Amino acid sequence: MRLVTYRANVLEAARLGAIVDTMVVDLENLGADNGIHLPDNMLDFIDLGPSAVKTATMLLEQNRANWPVGTAVPVQNVKLLAPIPRPRKNIFGIGLNYVEHVEESSRSLDTSADLPKQPIIFTKPPTSVIGPGDAVHHNAKITQQLDWEVELAAIIGTQACRIEEKDALSHVFGYSVMVDMSARDCSRAGQWVYSKGMDTYAPFGPCIITADEIPDPQTLDLWLTVNGEIKQKSNTKFMLFNVAHLIADISAGMTLEPGDIIATGTPAGVGAGRTPQEWLWPGDVIEAHVQGIGTLRHPIVAI
Amino acid sequence: MRLVTYRANVLEAARLGAIVDTMVVDLENLGADNGIHLPDNMLDFIDLGPSAVKTATMLLEQNRANWPVGTAVPVQNVKLLAPIPRPRKNIFGIGLNYVEHVEESSRSLDTSADLPKQPIIFTKPPTSVIGPGDAVHHNAKITQQLDWEVELAAIIGTQACRIEEKDALSHVFGYSVMVDMSARDCSRAGQWVYSKGMDTYAPFGPCIITADEIPDPQTLDLWLTVNGEIKQKSNTKFMLFNVAHLIADISAGMTLEPGDIIATGTPAGVGAGRTPQEWLWPGDVIEAHVQGIGTLRHPIVAI
Repeated sequence: MRLVTYRANVLEAARLGAIVDTMVVDLENLGADNGIHLPDNMLDFIDLGPSAVKTATMLLEQNRANWPVGTAVPVQNVKLLAPIPRPRKNIFGIGLNYVEHVEESSRSLDTSADLPKQPIIFTKPPTSVIGPGDAVHHNAKITQQLDWEVELAAIIGTQACRIEEKDALSHVFGYSVMVDMSARDCSRAGQWVYSKGMDTYAPFGPCIITADEIPDPQTLDLWLTVNGEIKQKSNTKFMLFNVAHLIADISAGMTLEPGDIIATGTPAGVGAGRTPQEWLWPGDVIEAHVQGIGTLRHPIVAI
Repeated sequence: MRLVTYRANVLEAARLGAIVDTMVVDLENLGADNGIHLPDNMLDFIDLGPSAVKTATMLLEQNRANWPVGTAVPVQNVKLLAPIPRPRKNIFGIGLNYVEHVEESSRSLDTSADLPKQPIIFTKPPTSVIGPGDAVHHNAKITQQLDWEVELAAIIGTQACRIEEKDALSHVFGYSVMVDMSARDCSRAGQWVYSKGMDTYAPFGPCIITADEIPDPQTLDLWLTVNGEIKQKSNTKFMLFNVAHLIADISAGMTLEPGDIIATGTPAGVGAGRTPQEWLWPGDVIEAHVQGIGTLRHPIVAI
């Protein structure tokens, strides 16, 4: 299932939908039409657990030939928001999780050339999240080194506390795309929360693909362009610590909860690692893609 | 006003109260008895803004001689929870914000001896929060270097986006105590989220003192004991970056929101900085105090 959070028009509240062919189907309305309660937002839907995914999938299949009145609108007529517009805690980010990115970072940033022995974890606050198409802020008073990082995001479906790697993927609700925007000159004595956590620094979406449709998250191409020029191009098979390992590792100390988001790290090709270094400026446009999920497109805008 | 979140008994939901003398006064019930709506939880109360503080203060004063039936219980009969049991995002933590702690850390940890030029910001997830008296977990599979850090916590009352230092304190709802528990051997390539963000690593409380009662947060003694022996003793006047500066700095890039918590850093005397180094073990008890706010007492318990 390809789940989205959307507005049918600017005056309406955000709603939970599923994209089927060219339509956005409103899950609460589709459920109501079939006498079944489904929620109007993504976090409540995730909280319902795997049975809700099965129910919604079945309803979409049953009604696909003829959507009930008031349940479906063409996707080009809606505004997509971040699939979880307001996460319940900071997003977990993973640093230096692709081999070639470790190397380029050690040349250009204050990081080690040795491969990490354990995942390097940081966070981005809920206020950093923006949805598809929204502007990424460039505040020249704060940064002259705004950089891009395309990442696969894993969304947790069920609580995970001290779980083993072999069981970890069963706790995943689905997958999405996140751009881990980074102001390289705003690291604070090596801590990344400020440099990666500023408002608009977490473009997220365009949808969440439920985990049943991505049985192996370590097989996905991902790429990012700046003004149409390819800058990053890799595959999730090159992660140092795969999604299952990340979940097991984080959950050993920090309980993961439904709706938690893990941005799983970025491959080589960031601006800081290039010769000469390249940074984003107002007027630039980034596009970020993960195979089977979709593409995010964001302008950089001065504030 | 001395605000708490409490349970009258284990079966009841958490409630918002104010401590007056030896009693906990239930604010929703006191309001109802006076024909005024007040919420049953701290975050909703904070969201109401400064006028709710004025209203509640007035009601407490008016009813103090004779609490209406069903509004007040002796404080020793209730269980105090963390004042905000479930923050809406990660807690902001500030590293190396007292001069002598910078020095001891540079000797014992992987931090610089130079005074930070800007606040060093990290975060602790909502799952790390525990209330007064709750056990701090010691997981010997993960850490052999569990350490203590007493801190003044500032709680944000109104949204703060790119505000100036001179206006910053007007955005503070109140102050509390937080212990920034730290597993020193769990830093991840210098990132502190894992080492400071584990479950139970943010003892918080026992109350929030509203900002009107602490006009200057830079005048407060704070101390921490381990098994009754004093380990940290300082005053918030020795902060490198004061509360107003921290709020202005964070809000320059990351919008602060009502209910956000900033743990403002710890003075010298942590276990890592002692000769020989000292760590916490199951059976130990820590007590942490900030002047005018109160004392937290927590046992360390093996898991």
